[in-house]
Amino acid sequence: MSKNYVNYGKCSAGKPGSTMEITGARFNLSPMSDQFETIILDAIHKVDLSKVWAETDHISTVYRGREEAVFDTLKAAFVFAYKKGVHMTLEATVSKGCPGDSDSDYTLEMDEPRANKEESSVIDFPVIGKFALYPMGSDDYMGTIAEVVNEGIDRGVVTGSGHYGTNLGGNVQDVFDYLEYVSNKVGSEVSHYVSQITLHCNVPEGDIK
Amino acid sequence: MSKNYVNYGKCSAGKPGSTMEITGARFNLSPMSDQFETIILDAIHKVDLSKVWAETDHISTVYRGREEAVFDTLKAAFVFAYKKGVHMTLEATVSKGCPGDSDSDYTLEMDEPRANKEESSVIDFPVIGKFALYPMGSDDYMGTIAEVVNEGIDRGVVTGSGHYGTNLGGNVQDVFDYLEYVSNKVGSEVSHYVSQITLHCNVPEGDIK
Repeated sequence: MSKNYVNYGKCSAGKPGSTMEITGARFNLSPMSDQFETIILDAIHKVDLSKVWAETDHISTVYRGREEAVFDTLKAAFVFAYKKGVHMTLEATVSKGCPGDSDSDYTLEMDEPRANKEESSVIDFPVIGKFALYPMGSDDYMGTIAEVVNEGIDRGVVTGSGHYGTNLGGNVQDVFDYLEYVSNKVGSEVSHYVSQITLHCNVPEGDIK
Repeated sequence: MSKNYVNYGKCSAGKPGSTMEITGARFNLSPMSDQFETIILDAIHKVDLSKVWAETDHISTVYRGREEAVFDTLKAAFVFAYKKGVHMTLEATVSKGCPGDSDSDYTLEMDEPRANKEESSVIDFPVIGKFALYPMGSDDYMGTIAEVVNEGIDRGVVTGSGHYGTNLGGNVQDVFDYLEYVSNKVGSEVSHYVSQITLHCNVPEGDIK
């Protein structure tokens, strides 16, 4: 039996596999409710996907396209899944410039990339969470991370840091604005970055220690 | 008002902030059930933490210590939270060698690091998921990733790959054995790596497209 081994040998650090400036997000919604299927499917189906390439399978959902369109659809999926009182976690990987990427599976609409803005911007609620930033193939990555973390402190959405992550807190709209700034800033400075994000809403009262 | 800006200026790529070979995992359990609090707290409290440093806050839980002890406790938290028929997602960041790390908040027990082995090894169930590997401060990171992905294909636990991740599937014990191999292999080759993991159990039948 032949196995489909992978070979990334033609990839070089510093040289994005896609030449099209494609940003992508792979994410999971986890509403901690017996109604999780309905909540997830209703939200996923409500998102206007006209400005991104999208795929949902058993494991996760992927959106690919312009940075503005990817953040617009990712935020829409999360806020459309919000239910008062239902604890939910969003886990998202946002990435751009992977040497293993290719000029496929994308939509790059140049006009009006934020198809969900009108509907999603009116839904606001508090979130807490964390993110970690991985500028790849760069020696000076800690300096880049410090710069965007300090901007988050100025904006009031970076609330501290712990092992393996920087803590986030604030209204979901402000936190998403900040996360898009992070991708934009880092994407303009390094050829390949990954931003790993976890956001929680309706966190139960009381410390779970 | 003074702000607590961060400064990572003294960190250098290739030089781990900790000299103690500390591995760490930061993770979230998301049981998609109205009983999520009980499920999470019961599991977290059942884990024998005698061989790791541990902290749980509103956002996530962190274990730090020897690599074997961290994987032992991480797997224990996940399998102890398993309930028949309850869809659950584990999101975990496993990391070693961060230049911003320090020789603090750890337990490095040298003998019998797998305190939960007896109880956790008898719980087995199918999982699907994905992982992404980020060898930091290295130019040859795609080659390292290809090597461990091919080992996963040989073991039968790597089931494919998509944008921004490599797909996992199999019994939870085999998948955790493989993820520990990945950390061990990559940790021996690069000074700083991050392995970002998502695992799902009790995934609803049917494609959720």
